[in-house]
Amino acid sequence: MPNILHRIGIEGTTSETVYQAVASREGIASWWTEKVTGESTVGSVLQFRFGKGGPDFQVLELAPPTRVRWKCVAGPEEWIDTRIHFDISQQDGETVLLFKHCGWRAEVEFMHHCSTQWAYFLIGLKQLVEVGQGRPYGPRFEPISHWSR
Amino acid sequence: MPNILHRIGIEGTTSETVYQAVASREGIASWWTEKVTGESTVGSVLQFRFGKGGPDFQVLELAPPTRVRWKCVAGPEEWIDTRIHFDISQQDGETVLLFKHCGWRAEVEFMHHCSTQWAYFLIGLKQLVEVGQGRPYGPRFEPISHWSR
Repeated sequence: MPNILHRIGIEGTTSETVYQAVASREGIASWWTEKVTGESTVGSVLQFRFGKGGPDFQVLELAPPTRVRWKCVAGPEEWIDTRIHFDISQQDGETVLLFKHCGWRAEVEFMHHCSTQWAYFLIGLKQLVEVGQGRPYGPRFEPISHWSR
Repeated sequence: MPNILHRIGIEGTTSETVYQAVASREGIASWWTEKVTGESTVGSVLQFRFGKGGPDFQVLELAPPTRVRWKCVAGPEEWIDTRIHFDISQQDGETVLLFKHCGWRAEVEFMHHCSTQWAYFLIGLKQLVEVGQGRPYGPRFEPISHWSR
């Protein structure tokens, strides 16, 4: 099945800090969307909202400071049952975040959009940790297309 | 085979302008890398260079103002024989660029990196057309990891 893959390297930080940015509700709200509700505990569901709705993810795994896994349980039809993997490691003097949004059923145009949009937010996560400001969906968000409105 | 997919929407422009940005050497140099040599004609080879080398692409197709196709003929081992597709259309009052880097042989870590890096450059292409400045590899480039050095 097709997957969206990304990788960023973050300087001057630790795996623990990057883990908190993807594992805690407050962390995620600082780079993906400010509109997050729910609890980030294994088995619980996090609700993420954007302009036109958004996905709910069940938390499958929280393994500090290296791994987070989610499964989509509601939201855009194309996302249902897809999974998100965050993997954190130390490489070449920086903290590396590998990202995978896996289990797409087809390479639809929405998948193209989501791939670019994930990269935008993940580069924002790097900026959040390095300079203190991300660009989550909210006042600082800059759309990559009309799809983002 | 795994593919990298992206999509951006560009406001206030035409398919012809976006086509020139991906079909002409001068256009590509304004958003991907300033170091481009060769001719952008069907059958010719374009050489793109970054900090650590870079790929050569043979131009397979130039169909103004909607389609450009390249095939990698030299460069990083993982890129050899992969193809780049640019497809341009009008949708919802904007010019949409669909991007595909297809034919990867495995979902290696380098593919994760390249996916995020392509998004960075393509969002720069949007900025180039909308506000007059991209961020190609060169003085305005901001690395997404040490891999980009």
